Amino acid sequence: MSLLTVGTVAFDDIETPFGKAGKIVGGAATYISWAASYFTSDVKLVSVIGDDFPQSELDRLEARGVNLKGLQIKEGEKSFFWAGKYHTNMNGRDTLDTQLNVLADFDPILPESFKNVDYVMLGNLTPQVQMRVIEQLEAQPKLIALDTMNFWMDVALGDLLAVIKKIDILIINDEEARQLSGEYSLVTAAEKIIGMGPKILVIKKGEHGALLFHGENIFYAPALPLKEVFDPTGAGDTFAGGFMGYIAKTGDTTFEGMKKAIVAGSALASFCVEKFGIQKLTEINDQLLTERIQRFEKLVRFDTVL
Amino acid sequence: MSLLTVGTVAFDDIETPFGKAGKIVGGAATYISWAASYFTSDVKLVSVIGDDFPQSELDRLEARGVNLKGLQIKEGEKSFFWAGKYHTNMNGRDTLDTQLNVLADFDPILPESFKNVDYVMLGNLTPQVQMRVIEQLEAQPKLIALDTMNFWMDVALGDLLAVIKKIDILIINDEEARQLSGEYSLVTAAEKIIGMGPKILVIKKGEHGALLFHGENIFYAPALPLKEVFDPTGAGDTFAGGFMGYIAKTGDTTFEGMKKAIVAGSALASFCVEKFGIQKLTEINDQLLTERIQRFEKLVRFDTVL
Repeated sequence: MSLLTVGTVAFDDIETPFGKAGKIVGGAATYISWAASYFTSDVKLVSVIGDDFPQSELDRLEARGVNLKGLQIKEGEKSFFWAGKYHTNMNGRDTLDTQLNVLADFDPILPESFKNVDYVMLGNLTPQVQMRVIEQLEAQPKLIALDTMNFWMDVALGDLLAVIKKIDILIINDEEARQLSGEYSLVTAAEKIIGMGPKILVIKKGEHGALLFHGENIFYAPALPLKEVFDPTGAGDTFAGGFMGYIAKTGDTTFEGMKKAIVAGSALASFCVEKFGIQKLTEINDQLLTERIQRFEKLVRFDTVL
Repeated sequence: MSLLTVGTVAFDDIETPFGKAGKIVGGAATYISWAASYFTSDVKLVSVIGDDFPQSELDRLEARGVNLKGLQIKEGEKSFFWAGKYHTNMNGRDTLDTQLNVLADFDPILPESFKNVDYVMLGNLTPQVQMRVIEQLEAQPKLIALDTMNFWMDVALGDLLAVIKKIDILIINDEEARQLSGEYSLVTAAEKIIGMGPKILVIKKGEHGALLFHGENIFYAPALPLKEVFDPTGAGDTFAGGFMGYIAKTGDTTFEGMKKAIVAGSALASFCVEKFGIQKLTEINDQLLTERIQRFEKLVRFDTVL
């Protein structure tokens, strides 16, 4: 089934304790599309780039089945650029540079063929832009998921709350859930956030895994313990892309179905952090993904205790 | 089967954002014994107290089947006392007062009937005292587990490394594993620590669950997401007591058996934090424990993904 995604397609310059990436391809929609492409061949991307973005990267996305009809290319302008440096131990990062460029006045325009889709993944962006995408949909999708960040809670909380009302699944990290709800306990935070509109909440906890709150039900998927996290950039977007891509594949939006989607997203995210940027996501295949998912299953399976 | 435990039996004075406990009963061996008693009725306790310790508390332990023949009572002396205050959000605590009292010159003496046991849980104490217990054992137990803390890594690393060489399972938290190994990645930390002697390592991650490293195998058990953590004191000891108590019950020291022991320990720890001190541990019963373990199982179970 079809998955529409909106988000940045951009350049990153990343420095980690393991080295410098230089200027590489990044952006939420890039990671989401790559990840989702391992589960569904009908990904529709809406974004904006300048004329500085390499055609070869667009070709690679199209080869994965990603429909780029909704990708605006602004002649004479530059793509969004972010530079950051991770702290030792990867438990934080500093932004060194942010150049909005084409993103400054981005108005997402959905091609006609994008207006009737099964699933939507709104990557982290200005809440008003996320809302503009929802407004253009002609039929109600089966599910709309949204990612956001602390920054929008600080500067555009009203717009964010308005768009959150319109969605089915919010996918954020633990710090964001705490800020949005004003609650430290993630269980209480989830109750408050579900009261804001979305029926379902996914809280990403990085190396500590992810929580799924689905009505009265809670599922906790641990993250794979890794020897080394080479570059965490895009792991959250990859998780979201894998999660929604898996749902687009199975069409199963029950609690049981979403649990499996969480594991699928976690498996893809565990690949993402192994190399700089999207590199590792471009190198895996179905067999490696299957093996990784089986490692996840093995990590948490146990027999009945009593 | 029998479980020998050594550790403090003491008084705590705890303040959390939810209130003040006043002077209440605490100590690693107290928590370990209470927790283990839900799985095995043959717990042998080695510790020391002053004549200020309430007989009624000792009676309650004996009623749970805890053998107190190895508990020294020092006339005219005072029991170990610790006072602490938790930070808002419970993510740290300050020690306000520590009075060693009878612990200052504690020499553990094992009664004859304690020298041949199946399992041993050495609670957090001076590494030399832990070693003295091992030296008095007449037959090699099936498993010796040990808990320790950063403090001993700072002030008695040599003694600690010597006792770690003699044990089978080390049970510590993530920060302690990082300090002991000098590695940030818990996977690399586990490799180094297993190289120090213990075949098995359990890393407690508090609200993020626990990891079991058993040879080449890794198991990750999440913690139950809780609305409220009322008092975290003793949760780690309760986990260790439940873990070893479950193994003493089943006699199963395989990877599969220890996974279940991790879940059993986690379930007991999730009770412990609901009230001050040992209060909640004294109120549960087999039915409540079974229900809690089933909640854990439900929290992490999912169908095959692919």
